[in-house]
Amino acid sequence: MAAPPRDVDARTAALQRPATEVILKTHTEPSDDLAMERRKATFDVNDLSYVLNGGKEQLEKKMRFAEVLSKTSWGDKSRRYFLTREEEYVGALKAALGIWEKMKSEALSLSDGALMRTLVDFPGGLELHIGMFIPSILSQGSAEQQAKWMPLCMGLKIIGTYAQTELGHGTFVRGLETTATYDKQTQEFVIHSPTLTATKWWPGGLGKTSTHAIVMARLMLPDGGGGVRDHGPHGFVVQIRDMDTHLPLQGVTIGDIGPKFGFGGVDNGFMSFDHLRIPRDNMLMRFAKVTPEGVYVPPPPSNSKASYATMVFVRADIVKNSGSVLARAVTIATRYAAVRRQTAPGPGQRELQVLDYQNCAATLLPLLASAYALTFMGEDMMGMYKKFEADRDAGRFEGLPELHALSSGLKALCTWTAADGIEECRRTCGGHGYSRLSGLPTLFASYVQNVTWEGDNNVLCLQTARYLIKALAGVKAGKRVEGSAAYLNDAATELAPSRRCAAAGEACWLRPEVAAAALRHAAARSCATATETLAAASGGRLVFEGAPWNSNTVDSIRAAKAHCVLVLHATFLDSVARLEAGAGTININTSTAAALPSSSGGAGGLPRLGAAAAGVLRQLAALFALDSLERGGGLAVLLEDGYMSAAQAGALRRAHRGLLAALRPNAVALVDAFAFPDYLLHSALGRADGDVYRGLLDMARGSPLNDTQEGPAWHEVLRPVLAARSRL
Amino acid sequence: MAAPPRDVDARTAALQRPATEVILKTHTEPSDDLAMERRKATFDVNDLSYVLNGGKEQLEKKMRFAEVLSKTSWGDKSRRYFLTREEEYVGALKAALGIWEKMKSEALSLSDGALMRTLVDFPGGLELHIGMFIPSILSQGSAEQQAKWMPLCMGLKIIGTYAQTELGHGTFVRGLETTATYDKQTQEFVIHSPTLTATKWWPGGLGKTSTHAIVMARLMLPDGGGGVRDHGPHGFVVQIRDMDTHLPLQGVTIGDIGPKFGFGGVDNGFMSFDHLRIPRDNMLMRFAKVTPEGVYVPPPPSNSKASYATMVFVRADIVKNSGSVLARAVTIATRYAAVRRQTAPGPGQRELQVLDYQNCAATLLPLLASAYALTFMGEDMMGMYKKFEADRDAGRFEGLPELHALSSGLKALCTWTAADGIEECRRTCGGHGYSRLSGLPTLFASYVQNVTWEGDNNVLCLQTARYLIKALAGVKAGKRVEGSAAYLNDAATELAPSRRCAAAGEACWLRPEVAAAALRHAAARSCATATETLAAASGGRLVFEGAPWNSNTVDSIRAAKAHCVLVLHATFLDSVARLEAGAGTININTSTAAALPSSSGGAGGLPRLGAAAAGVLRQLAALFALDSLERGGGLAVLLEDGYMSAAQAGALRRAHRGLLAALRPNAVALVDAFAFPDYLLHSALGRADGDVYRGLLDMARGSPLNDTQEGPAWHEVLRPVLAARSRL
Repeated sequence: MAAPPRDVDARTAALQRPATEVILKTHTEPSDDLAMERRKATFDVNDLSYVLNGGKEQLEKKMRFAEVLSKTSWGDKSRRYFLTREEEYVGALKAALGIWEKMKSEALSLSDGALMRTLVDFPGGLELHIGMFIPSILSQGSAEQQAKWMPLCMGLKIIGTYAQTELGHGTFVRGLETTATYDKQTQEFVIHSPTLTATKWWPGGLGKTSTHAIVMARLMLPDGGGGVRDHGPHGFVVQIRDMDTHLPLQGVTIGDIGPKFGFGGVDNGFMSFDHLRIPRDNMLMRFAKVTPEGVYVPPPPSNSKASYATMVFVRADIVKNSGSVLARAVTIATRYAAVRRQTAPGPGQRELQVLDYQNCAATLLPLLASAYALTFMGEDMMGMYKKFEADRDAGRFEGLPELHALSSGLKALCTWTAADGIEECRRTCGGHGYSRLSGLPTLFASYVQNVTWEGDNNVLCLQTARYLIKALAGVKAGKRVEGSAAYLNDAATELAPSRRCAAAGEACWLRPEVAAAALRHAAARSCATATETLAAASGGRLVFEGAPWNSNTVDSIRAAKAHCVLVLHATFLDSVARLEAGAGTININTSTAAALPSSSGGAGGLPRLGAAAAGVLRQLAALFALDSLERGGGLAVLLEDGYMSAAQAGALRRAHRGLLAALRPNAVALVDAFAFPDYLLHSALGRADGDVYRGLLDMARGSPLNDTQEGPAWHEVLRPVLAARSRL
Repeated sequence: MAAPPRDVDARTAALQRPATEVILKTHTEPSDDLAMERRKATFDVNDLSYVLNGGKEQLEKKMRFAEVLSKTSWGDKSRRYFLTREEEYVGALKAALGIWEKMKSEALSLSDGALMRTLVDFPGGLELHIGMFIPSILSQGSAEQQAKWMPLCMGLKIIGTYAQTELGHGTFVRGLETTATYDKQTQEFVIHSPTLTATKWWPGGLGKTSTHAIVMARLMLPDGGGGVRDHGPHGFVVQIRDMDTHLPLQGVTIGDIGPKFGFGGVDNGFMSFDHLRIPRDNMLMRFAKVTPEGVYVPPPPSNSKASYATMVFVRADIVKNSGSVLARAVTIATRYAAVRRQTAPGPGQRELQVLDYQNCAATLLPLLASAYALTFMGEDMMGMYKKFEADRDAGRFEGLPELHALSSGLKALCTWTAADGIEECRRTCGGHGYSRLSGLPTLFASYVQNVTWEGDNNVLCLQTARYLIKALAGVKAGKRVEGSAAYLNDAATELAPSRRCAAAGEACWLRPEVAAAALRHAAARSCATATETLAAASGGRLVFEGAPWNSNTVDSIRAAKAHCVLVLHATFLDSVARLEAGAGTININTSTAAALPSSSGGAGGLPRLGAAAAGVLRQLAALFALDSLERGGGLAVLLEDGYMSAAQAGALRRAHRGLLAALRPNAVALVDAFAFPDYLLHSALGRADGDVYRGLLDMARGSPLNDTQEGPAWHEVLRPVLAARSRL
């Protein structure tokens, strides 16, 4: 591009001069609105904030970390929304390496590292090294293998990824096509991609970063009769790049799969193999083994059950994260809705805060309730995980089917709630919500993958539904069911035609047991309906596969959702009671909460939730229940069933609207309590000081299109078209 | 970055070699699946395709244009998903200028130009020049002003934009703060931004492209007593950049507002004024005028009504576009769901097509029905617009309130349906839907702004609700209502406690009049509920402003939606009947359908929809109605009202599921009928040949991260960390 023709410097200098110089005064003072909101709160925000952040010390640490990170070269976010894909990739990798280095140099704990990763919020090429490669070697590798690989991993002498998904195969792992064929002569496995659809596709960090991968491939062993036998997918540690040149090894084709909706910093990759040979030792052999002679030693029978531990942990982690991410979105949207003013009710009057339009409150306050519900659920699921570990070590696996079913459905419901909720928050921000400077487009685009990965949400709901339908059939056959589905033991009573809702008037709907009873009835009925649909399609029997099952999934998925809503509501109330009793805290900040002590209150003991805050949280729990019924389809189920009358439905609606009004004064305080630093939110609209318009203008100045006044198209594209002429 | 250390070229060459060389054969042949689907269709696709594309000639022209455009430098899409923001901006501008040039050099019609813009699908800096600046001069400028500005506009000697929205003011136009103060001495207006929130924000093409803008500013005139009087917002043509240097004029600060969710090619801008002077003539003076002495001449009284024409046209255009865009998303997702296979029902069996899972069909088929519903609605709204023009020219404005109310609600409902539908389509594509190569992330991110611009959807629904509530009150007071809300004339009968749904059994629900009656009852009841809620809040009266109105918007918005669903269903059925009668066609391709003759069937006359295709469309209309009832909340309303019994609700559900199964064989044919060329879809998953996996791999190779084998981080970031070592 040719040099600019005239004295551009003076003009550019003029742009650098803040536009605010020419501005007299904003006649709205946005920060006043937030100050006013904060004065309206009926509880002490610190009281709730300490409990949600694992105590005062943890909260202060978070704020300190945010300050420190914002001043590092790799943690600075000022250009974050302006990066090209290549810059994003390199920048995210630098951030990951920066945190890794800081943890080493300052001897930080794993939980501190996790907190830093959350705050920097810039996933890159090391995600799967940390999140899948290392954990897989620890859980699936033999002692010798761990001794060999772990120092290389922890010293970052190699970078690994986890290559399972293929172009043609995702959720259905048994369909994987990549093969690992044993060659007894050389005692090697030959890794091969027999088809196009066998190409590994999606692994994070595979495209350009990883030197190694755990490759899931079908184990093919001599069958003793001159042929080969397929033992199904197993894991193999495979070096994929030359350590000197970083080029793919002979026999390996690797590349980046291209841009995604979000997650630009991660180099998700593709990889195919042309008869690549690896040593026999590289098969992960903690459980299943292959002898030098090529004989298969199957895993011990209990292993398949024990291996659920990782899955439960990952799901708990996802649920925990769903609450935290939704809380971030709600924080941004709620603060902005308190600052943004729209339409004066009359001449000379001040425009109204957007949050005072009922439809805005009816969007944001239930999402705020959901953010709390998901956060409490995540903490609770971490507890389930720990209990499972203890049970497993004691050889007890009775609770596994329910844990599997519940964690499946909760992963689905919580990620749907968070993903849809972020987008709803974005829309309540109106036009400015469409700007990336709001933070919400990036948050949504990066988060929404969660509804698909680690099991597509619909598929997971079907696993929950299968459990519920079997449980209900069992109850009818005289068995009892334990745990979250225990209410099915009373299905006959619950679903009797005479069963009626006990709510008498609007106030009744605020009582936790009335709302819980309605959610329970809706769940039981939904489960019964799914059972009947399936039975009708299976000729009276219950067939959980093939056409009868697959052609009747709509009602099954609904049953799974209704069950999980019930669990979320119960957990919400239990958690408030627990926090009020001073028994533990929540850590909303990092998803890897298991690494954190749940009693981190420091010398002063655990913080205890005060009565005022607990009361407000119980209002939120009520709103969660009523909103789930009213907008989630539960109302239609209850009316159809004759459980609820028209008068009760009307009372429920009034109670719902009343809660919106009752919670309105505490809206800003309830998001303030999450205590997300501005550094984490990185949002012009979500700033704690409410100075949103100055925030937008300041951030926009950094747009690369503003590097020159005339823009990148002037000299070569626009100038030849537009007639050169002075003022017309 | 340092040069690569070794012989990288040979390695790079290896990457260029398609990975498919090492691949034996895909054991699934995706294109077979689509061929199989196409054989299953029960109607002639061409028959429907001609009708949807304005006739055979128009369809062939579309295909020819797509071919031609794909070969231009500026229409080539191969790098479209890989561009940096700056490249997007320059590329989109080149495409816009390329089309402009082609129209001139080949003397193409405006409708051909619109078709090309649709196919190239790359909005850039000329959007508002074409869509707002020129139309505003034509509709608001005096004859002299048109004579002055139009040649400059059409010769592209200037580029204009439309600057209305400000940082602090969007939907509420009366709140704009920018001022235009008349200086009688110099006969100039002084354009000024008195506050930060007065900064113009969002206009497309403002950031770096436009030389001129129509600026909406408060007209401030001498009040005769030494002060100034505020006459509210008026439009002014303002030159903002120097024509020689393209630099902002003294007194104008301009910049790009930074990246958005989508729409990266458009340089939405900000602008503030520091006492910029413009000639008096630059106020648009077709209607209101200011004399040289500074005296205000108000517009003629009928003008405010006539000016609704533009608004109605823009909304019709948005609705038309909503159908087309949703149809694109459904095309991609439906083809992929027919090709993608997931989970074998038993050992040795082929995995099932995803479309055969009921929940997938239950997502995609109702969206397919909606795509048709929205397309028909858009065509119908163009008819309403033409009728309004004719009425206006005859001085008749009785239909305006209803047209205003209806077009508001339909804009809202249709854009919500399309935006949410695109994202639902994306999710049914599982993991690969998250790749931008699917086309769906870009489509969603660019489209979703439609729920906010041209009036926030919730605000628009409230305008519809206000009309409906007033209409119902009028009916109660003995007045009659005409048009789409005429059913409210019978509200007393409709809402009588004894009113019952006539459906007897599952088959009844397939009858259009039964479904329509249920939708009508739901709409009437929702309107009555909103009226009661408002009356309760207003102390018995109906107050349409302030707290009573703003604090009760949830039920109002529901009423507006229920009304619009009813209209969509009726229009669907009417359109099928009209097409079957050979009376007109649809043009699904361009949103500016008003420019197209609706009888473009060529010498052979209008194409006529065959009975087989019409029958399938009626099934789709039935699915649209039942799905709206079941998932849209209508069912709860009808049950609560006692209009529908539990048995009828059950029958409705079975009829809904039955329609899913009945429509399944025609799914691919129904999307094929839209006849979107692969060039438009630009999707690895939506290819007409179904070769999706090869498509993903081929497109991914173009990712800039694949420019080198070792990636952009190796030499400076990774190499210093990873120990140099050969194979471990």
